[in-house]
Amino acid sequence: MSTDRLVIFDTTLRDGEQSPGASMTKAEKIRIAKMLEKMRVDVIEAGFAIASQGDFESVRAVAEAVKDSTVCSLARAADADIDRAGEALAPAAAGRIHTFIATSPIHMKYKLQMQPDQVIERAVRSVKRARNLVADVEFSLEDASRSEHEFMCRIIEAVIDAGATTINLPDTVGYGEPLEYGLMFSRLITAVPNADKAIFSTHCHNDLGLAVANSLSAVRHGARQVECTINGLGERAGNASLEEIVMAMRTRKDVLNVDTRIDATHIVPTSRLVASVTGFPVQPNKAIVGANAFAHESGIHQDGVLKHRETYEIMRAEDVGWNSNKLVLGKHSGRAAVKSRFDELGISFESQEVFNEAFVRFKTLADKKHEIFDEDLQALVSDVRESLSSHQFQFETLEVLCKTGQVPNAKVSVIVDGELKRAEAEGSGAVDATFKAIEKIACSDTELQLYSVNAITQGTEAQGEVTVRLSKQGFIVNGTGADTDIVIASAKAYIDALNLLAEDKHKEHPQREGV
Amino acid sequence: MSTDRLVIFDTTLRDGEQSPGASMTKAEKIRIAKMLEKMRVDVIEAGFAIASQGDFESVRAVAEAVKDSTVCSLARAADADIDRAGEALAPAAAGRIHTFIATSPIHMKYKLQMQPDQVIERAVRSVKRARNLVADVEFSLEDASRSEHEFMCRIIEAVIDAGATTINLPDTVGYGEPLEYGLMFSRLITAVPNADKAIFSTHCHNDLGLAVANSLSAVRHGARQVECTINGLGERAGNASLEEIVMAMRTRKDVLNVDTRIDATHIVPTSRLVASVTGFPVQPNKAIVGANAFAHESGIHQDGVLKHRETYEIMRAEDVGWNSNKLVLGKHSGRAAVKSRFDELGISFESQEVFNEAFVRFKTLADKKHEIFDEDLQALVSDVRESLSSHQFQFETLEVLCKTGQVPNAKVSVIVDGELKRAEAEGSGAVDATFKAIEKIACSDTELQLYSVNAITQGTEAQGEVTVRLSKQGFIVNGTGADTDIVIASAKAYIDALNLLAEDKHKEHPQREGV
Repeated sequence: MSTDRLVIFDTTLRDGEQSPGASMTKAEKIRIAKMLEKMRVDVIEAGFAIASQGDFESVRAVAEAVKDSTVCSLARAADADIDRAGEALAPAAAGRIHTFIATSPIHMKYKLQMQPDQVIERAVRSVKRARNLVADVEFSLEDASRSEHEFMCRIIEAVIDAGATTINLPDTVGYGEPLEYGLMFSRLITAVPNADKAIFSTHCHNDLGLAVANSLSAVRHGARQVECTINGLGERAGNASLEEIVMAMRTRKDVLNVDTRIDATHIVPTSRLVASVTGFPVQPNKAIVGANAFAHESGIHQDGVLKHRETYEIMRAEDVGWNSNKLVLGKHSGRAAVKSRFDELGISFESQEVFNEAFVRFKTLADKKHEIFDEDLQALVSDVRESLSSHQFQFETLEVLCKTGQVPNAKVSVIVDGELKRAEAEGSGAVDATFKAIEKIACSDTELQLYSVNAITQGTEAQGEVTVRLSKQGFIVNGTGADTDIVIASAKAYIDALNLLAEDKHKEHPQREGV
Repeated sequence: MSTDRLVIFDTTLRDGEQSPGASMTKAEKIRIAKMLEKMRVDVIEAGFAIASQGDFESVRAVAEAVKDSTVCSLARAADADIDRAGEALAPAAAGRIHTFIATSPIHMKYKLQMQPDQVIERAVRSVKRARNLVADVEFSLEDASRSEHEFMCRIIEAVIDAGATTINLPDTVGYGEPLEYGLMFSRLITAVPNADKAIFSTHCHNDLGLAVANSLSAVRHGARQVECTINGLGERAGNASLEEIVMAMRTRKDVLNVDTRIDATHIVPTSRLVASVTGFPVQPNKAIVGANAFAHESGIHQDGVLKHRETYEIMRAEDVGWNSNKLVLGKHSGRAAVKSRFDELGISFESQEVFNEAFVRFKTLADKKHEIFDEDLQALVSDVRESLSSHQFQFETLEVLCKTGQVPNAKVSVIVDGELKRAEAEGSGAVDATFKAIEKIACSDTELQLYSVNAITQGTEAQGEVTVRLSKQGFIVNGTGADTDIVIASAKAYIDALNLLAEDKHKEHPQREGV
């Protein structure tokens, strides 16, 4: 089914979430999925249903919330995986099961410990089982870029016969080189007799910085689906980034000759949402979505831009959603205005009580900060949800004095399982003293792996969003906290991370895989 | 001179420095240049000598400091530019003048307002003039990827006849697509009669995420020099990143068939130094140098790694300098140990007095922080240099109280032109109150554009390094400050930025250009 339309398959919620420390809650996944739907992504891979109860519920919730995009779940080539994926996707308007098995000699031998014929048999059985549950089945040859041509021809022909409608050839380890990866597609599409009955798909990792280029090369050689993620999130160096793929296709349609149905004006807001949810910042020199992507420093370049825009610009910042960060609300905004802005952001509230709490916090924030932006509202609603659920640790008060020449001191009070506890500690800085005081109460035996601060909006009154990554016995969690005071935001983030560890949130991913 | 050796041309100090807000001081440029030399970069582009007195002095200082790499200065195709570049490069063991002029119809018409024949005449004249000063002359066809084949053939043949030894074909606006960009090289190399007398070079921008792929494609089609930057720094979305180019060449030597003389174990330390000097963080999912680049989350992947390393790893973290962050010093380390570690880091002191001051600060830091890493030493030495030069504003004391439920308050004292001034202010947070108190003294009329925090090392005792970007009347500066206390680091960074503005550091780049 070779066509000039390219299918955009976003896996931010599945492969992206597999970045160490990027776990997302169900509510966060729904928010991102709604943005992806608004952006007109064709397929949203929402998770790996059998991996955990949390993953199952997230896939099901996204399947319920999203109507204009196909919703997909990953599943190993095993009966239980397929059935669980089908169950999670039951509410979807359009559901896809994405099943996979490794096809490279090294993976079949060392990981699967199976013979090639057994692998084909397992693949065919799984695709057939999936086709009994949904009409749309994708099959991935894990580590395709290191697999043998003859074997790939055999397994692809067999799974297409069994009903697979998309064939994905992932560059699982990010080893591919554009020409070689592209030629793999044209050779297979030519050699497999029933290749015209499926769409061929790319899935590239960025270990050598070539994920986007490998994807484009595959498209030039016949692929018609690209798997990608917002901000290039994903395991290790990440996946091909959606924003680069989409804008390269659009800007160089003259040579690439395909187009997507993406509404690119949602790219920058979605990028910010993903950065904020995961605590993974976007570097300033990131293409399309980095803070400097459209900034020109050099005098002559600026002169050139003024004289004739096309001398230095190949895209317009507004086409990808820059400058959409409008001032929306202030301290005089009423309930209706606030509610309506939340609606436009795709944020809904489970109950009137939750909205009331959000509105109270909005008013408090507006007293401290005169201009409230979309990002402030998004941070605020995370905070509300946090405080309304019952957690082991609940932040109460903090008092920190820092003075040059003195050792910083922090007094903190935290409610632990309903009981108020206080502690005081000194540290090498205000944040260190705060964390040490919290640890006197929590005794968590964790290791601080990362401390990062992002300004949610610009200007001196900006809220700071702090991410604290803690690890304990090999498990990693990212806690986040937002406040106009960076020290208080740090305390909130630390306590959020402790709660995530206490609630075994890390156990949502007891056994992860990917392509 | 087609060969299997690829020349690595680093332009972090020239094109990288053109990122808005990434200006570097002379001392910082020397530190980075010494690291690049240690890494065995072939050519270091140190600046654009005629752009300002500061740029001239930086190029000259790098030319004096570096002996194992060729040092290069950019110069427009104009007599005064060429002469100034030659003068700056006089102390170099090996110097290169890199001159350029635009060759695309759109640039010749709108920017240069010159006829094609005038452009050729100017180029030839400039190359000849440069060859009278140095033996090694590079000529760039600005906006080559949008220039006409016939015209490029004419100008390339003429400048090679005039003595150019390297011909660079930049993708100035980041518009190139790998196959198309590569074919431009093979067609030109075939068509130009004297092409064998020069090395062809790539210079790619990353606006569509294709800078590395375009460079590699050009190499497959005959290019033997790649221009690139550490962390992919550079205007807009940046340049091709050195670390990805080098590791792609090495990992895929089987298809690319070239190699570099780079010692890759210096990649991660150099990446950190550049991030710290510019205040531009590296995102966790950046290839090679991102914090997650070698981290595996998924259970099965981990299992695979344990079973057989090559199932998921194509490079080893230690090959690119990860894990080289050894614990080096503590509070009991003596002067000799500290001095020797500074030497190993390539940090030298102008005088005994400066080293003494650094050692005093080392002891103070070691009292607060038990483990002192290389990054701590690098931050400390920046701090010393800062405090020993005479600046308009000098930070004295800070006292901040933050308490939940109260408005944060900051008292600050700053010496302004020798006179001690005090101020007190409230703010929406500890940092906001601090900045407002400083502003009561400085009345700078600047706008805060960016506030970012990087942990210099891991753990709760880590020093925080804060970057504050201020703008005033279109000029941008990045101030940095490091301290174990994040609030104090913020105050230092803000004052550093005010000093940079006061000293007209931004005027170092009155007229910038690039390829």
